[in-house]
Amino acid sequence: MNAYRSPQADLRFVIHEVLAAADTLAALPAHAQTGADLIDAVLEESARFCDQVIAPLYQGGDAGCTFRDGEVSAPAGFREAFRAFAEGGWSGITAPEGEGGQGLPYVLDGAFKEMINGANVAWGTFPLLGHGAIESLRHYGEDWQKAAFLQPLVEGRWTGTMCLTEPHCGTDLGLLKTRAEPLGDGRYAISGQKIFITAGEHDFTPNIVHLVLARLPDAPPGVKGISLFVVPKFKVGRDGAMGGRNAVRCGSIEHKMGLHGSATCVMNFDEAEGWLLGPPNKGLAAMFLMMNSARLAVGIQGLGLIERAWQNALAYARDRLQMRAPAGPAYPDKPADPLIVHPDIRRMLLTCRAFAEGGRVLSLYAWLKADVAAHASDAAERAAAETVVGFLTPICKGLLTEAAVECAYHAQQVYGGHGYIAEWGMEQIARDARITTIYEGTTQIQALDLIGRKTLLADGAGLKAVLAEIGAFCRMEADNPALADLLSALTDRADQWARLTRTIAGQAAGDPAAAPAAAFDYLFYSGYVMLAWCWAQRVAAAERSDRGESFKRAQREVAAFYFARILPRADYHAACIEAGPAPLMALADDEVGAGA
Amino acid sequence: MNAYRSPQADLRFVIHEVLAAADTLAALPAHAQTGADLIDAVLEESARFCDQVIAPLYQGGDAGCTFRDGEVSAPAGFREAFRAFAEGGWSGITAPEGEGGQGLPYVLDGAFKEMINGANVAWGTFPLLGHGAIESLRHYGEDWQKAAFLQPLVEGRWTGTMCLTEPHCGTDLGLLKTRAEPLGDGRYAISGQKIFITAGEHDFTPNIVHLVLARLPDAPPGVKGISLFVVPKFKVGRDGAMGGRNAVRCGSIEHKMGLHGSATCVMNFDEAEGWLLGPPNKGLAAMFLMMNSARLAVGIQGLGLIERAWQNALAYARDRLQMRAPAGPAYPDKPADPLIVHPDIRRMLLTCRAFAEGGRVLSLYAWLKADVAAHASDAAERAAAETVVGFLTPICKGLLTEAAVECAYHAQQVYGGHGYIAEWGMEQIARDARITTIYEGTTQIQALDLIGRKTLLADGAGLKAVLAEIGAFCRMEADNPALADLLSALTDRADQWARLTRTIAGQAAGDPAAAPAAAFDYLFYSGYVMLAWCWAQRVAAAERSDRGESFKRAQREVAAFYFARILPRADYHAACIEAGPAPLMALADDEVGAGA
Repeated sequence: MNAYRSPQADLRFVIHEVLAAADTLAALPAHAQTGADLIDAVLEESARFCDQVIAPLYQGGDAGCTFRDGEVSAPAGFREAFRAFAEGGWSGITAPEGEGGQGLPYVLDGAFKEMINGANVAWGTFPLLGHGAIESLRHYGEDWQKAAFLQPLVEGRWTGTMCLTEPHCGTDLGLLKTRAEPLGDGRYAISGQKIFITAGEHDFTPNIVHLVLARLPDAPPGVKGISLFVVPKFKVGRDGAMGGRNAVRCGSIEHKMGLHGSATCVMNFDEAEGWLLGPPNKGLAAMFLMMNSARLAVGIQGLGLIERAWQNALAYARDRLQMRAPAGPAYPDKPADPLIVHPDIRRMLLTCRAFAEGGRVLSLYAWLKADVAAHASDAAERAAAETVVGFLTPICKGLLTEAAVECAYHAQQVYGGHGYIAEWGMEQIARDARITTIYEGTTQIQALDLIGRKTLLADGAGLKAVLAEIGAFCRMEADNPALADLLSALTDRADQWARLTRTIAGQAAGDPAAAPAAAFDYLFYSGYVMLAWCWAQRVAAAERSDRGESFKRAQREVAAFYFARILPRADYHAACIEAGPAPLMALADDEVGAGA
Repeated sequence: MNAYRSPQADLRFVIHEVLAAADTLAALPAHAQTGADLIDAVLEESARFCDQVIAPLYQGGDAGCTFRDGEVSAPAGFREAFRAFAEGGWSGITAPEGEGGQGLPYVLDGAFKEMINGANVAWGTFPLLGHGAIESLRHYGEDWQKAAFLQPLVEGRWTGTMCLTEPHCGTDLGLLKTRAEPLGDGRYAISGQKIFITAGEHDFTPNIVHLVLARLPDAPPGVKGISLFVVPKFKVGRDGAMGGRNAVRCGSIEHKMGLHGSATCVMNFDEAEGWLLGPPNKGLAAMFLMMNSARLAVGIQGLGLIERAWQNALAYARDRLQMRAPAGPAYPDKPADPLIVHPDIRRMLLTCRAFAEGGRVLSLYAWLKADVAAHASDAAERAAAETVVGFLTPICKGLLTEAAVECAYHAQQVYGGHGYIAEWGMEQIARDARITTIYEGTTQIQALDLIGRKTLLADGAGLKAVLAEIGAFCRMEADNPALADLLSALTDRADQWARLTRTIAGQAAGDPAAAPAAAFDYLFYSGYVMLAWCWAQRVAAAERSDRGESFKRAQREVAAFYFARILPRADYHAACIEAGPAPLMALADDEVGAGA
């Protein structure tokens, strides 16, 4: 009842025409050979995998994983789909060819990840965190560790996890208690309990590589005393040979609101054998390395779900007959008009489309910057791109996941009562989307990251870079009549964005609560302006393309909708920022609920 | 893990001090004896039922109803709780004593319903729709029908349903196909399928009274050809004697996102014996009679869930230790500070509190107006109150249910990862809340009702009445220093509300799509201004009370939060209204998805 088809045409439009990715990639030595044809071929092949292999497993996967005697079984078909994924070489899509990967650019991986998540977000969690493990091993691993662990991960022969959270600490990793005792021969005995471990146990692959944060015996307290360890499910020697079962076991899986096809595991480490990865007590830096790519990836989970919600809501709104159009019967030969004639149904549909297509530009822009950050020949160019990626990461994660919750809501609402019934699949999208604003750092954490580390503490470097690009775009398109209204609004918003940043900096100088109090609204303000720019870029690209008028017109009108009906939300967030921290902080902790 | 305690103290504050309900009731002959003491006694007794009998069944009830061979079993304890409810006389709380009821005012029923829904919204659906059946029978029933059907419903010996929706029509009842063939002796044979029938089948009571919309053989097409029938599960003769099983059977129950403890039934009528209720082809009017009270009641489902979400989020935010306060450790003796020190956690908590306590005033104000509408001795006063109730109904239903979805979201977010896990119960609140914006008329339908029938087609009568009351309040409190800022903002918003109404009327004169395009934003604009008034009233009542400074201060500061951080959302809705219908309507039906 619930369908998904990869938005290949729009992905190509964004990659080639909006972002001109092939031009950017051509300047990067590692990707100089990645032309548009190769991109299209990979897109087509990966779309086939998503549409034909994993999309049909989405609704069935909601039946969930099962747990018995420490073993986890994924929903029917998931295991075979993973095998097809690994055999297709998809797990190493961005890894260098020297490591057994395909050496393809991140921007293409971003497109592929969107399709995976639109097709089957729960299935997508199984390969998801291997990427973070790969990055950490590549960056910190000794040679033998790379040979032993990295290669099987790249090739999809094993999968990886990130073991951070403990029952008493999620966000606040400084509190973590898992211990690592040195055994004197380079090995460590890891003991403790980790929770919310995605794909912590399964039977897809013969081994699972856990990346585990733990404390050494002499570690300082707090986040400065955290180290990172590699702890495989089956022991692995320095020669890469797989040995016996390690003392890390899944104790149970969580009963969750959604994402039932993904195994969320309690993992118990009982003197499990592990290896230190990177320097002692520097685990937090390694964790951030894993986390940043995971955060962009979770943003894309949001995007995939938005696209899925939008496709189904559109189809239903065209099909379901109910009431007549405001001006009278639009389809007099039918017993009633399709839902799509109704203005508020259109508001919900257009909101979904605006987030799906605008969010796609935002997301792929960030992933293309990641390619530049990784591979530009000039170090300053790499650093500048890295700054932008860092700035965009909390925006992508925060905005696209919150938009996913919103769009899933709209899509359910379009379905009316049927949106609440399991068989139509819309409520599954809503349940699945709900975790994305929580895990890999809640929206609140993204907001603090954006205003704090990425803006105030960085002297606004990321913002300045983005504003410079927006300014250049506005100057370049200044004479384009199709964009006149949009550019004027965009320029105003860009100015206001800079102004609000200064406002917060001013507030923060006098009150440590000011920046955290403004953070949420600043995140959304930033997101809405970014999407406005994305939509202006879409219109510009559509206008200069040789596509038909129907395509161009739809782009213009959805952009006009976005600017008229979504972008004004930014004013609300500006008002909240300008109100300062007092409305949140006036009551003492024990007064917040006083009298209630 | 998920608790609920009836907010008795705040209910008393709102009923006695904010609304001075006893004064209003004293002027109504039917309720002249309902003093504050009686109100408090009933509140206390009903709170005991909610807190002790049904609240403990909430999380267990999520296991759901089961269906076998046409029979539905509710979750453990639900049946016994219903028996206690009926034996306590709660099902007839507002019915006249002459009908076997308690003759208590609606405002008290409103308070009771909030507690029922906070305690166990799914359980609350079993008695919910009996009220609509009672109203319809009282209004349209022949004497024998009242004796046969009304009395057992009032006494809770039987329950009632509303059978409206069919597979192909929910909102658009003009499309319904269920047929009623006269049998010549006053009986009718009803045939057809109804879906989404809440509590359509259960084993709580020996009989169930279905109120069914169907078409007579000679009925005109569309909504003008719908009649209302009483169709009991077990046949009932004119003498009230219960006979054999009627040909109405539950075919299945729905698998839903939430509200699992409520049986949502497919009901098949196969020449079932029924009786016409009211005049032929006038079923829609009878349906609206049922529907209006049901809509207010669903608004209260939202309110109850907001209160439950808020209570649990507050408790968790006080308990869970994570990170340090912005200015440094606030509780240096603990390993970390409680969540409540964090500004954005407070934003979410205060949003929940603002909706819970403000929404309580809005809701009880509407129910108190319903008492005046039913019982004022002066007909003009009754009519005026009825106009206000009609105007407030879509606002209460629309705003409080959407706020429930929002607050459930916030409360989950406060819990972080644990908010997504079933055992904590927060995700159940979110799933249960999600239906409230859909059933008994989606938010879209409420919005159309508000701007159309209740405003533009009524020459703004309801709005004018409410604005007059707001104006009177502002004049009365003009010299109250605690309210100065609030009253200035409230006055501006009241003026803008009137202005926006004229704007829409002007747009609508030239474009039939204008009012439906503005409807959603008008509903929210209206709701936010109403809540602003409610919060101003709370502060005024708190200031003039003899309560402690801590209570007054909390009221002032939550009001200040509402005005600074929630009310500005009204600007966004105003901007959307002012943008007019073009951004929604520019694309043709088949262009909305063009190129996507």
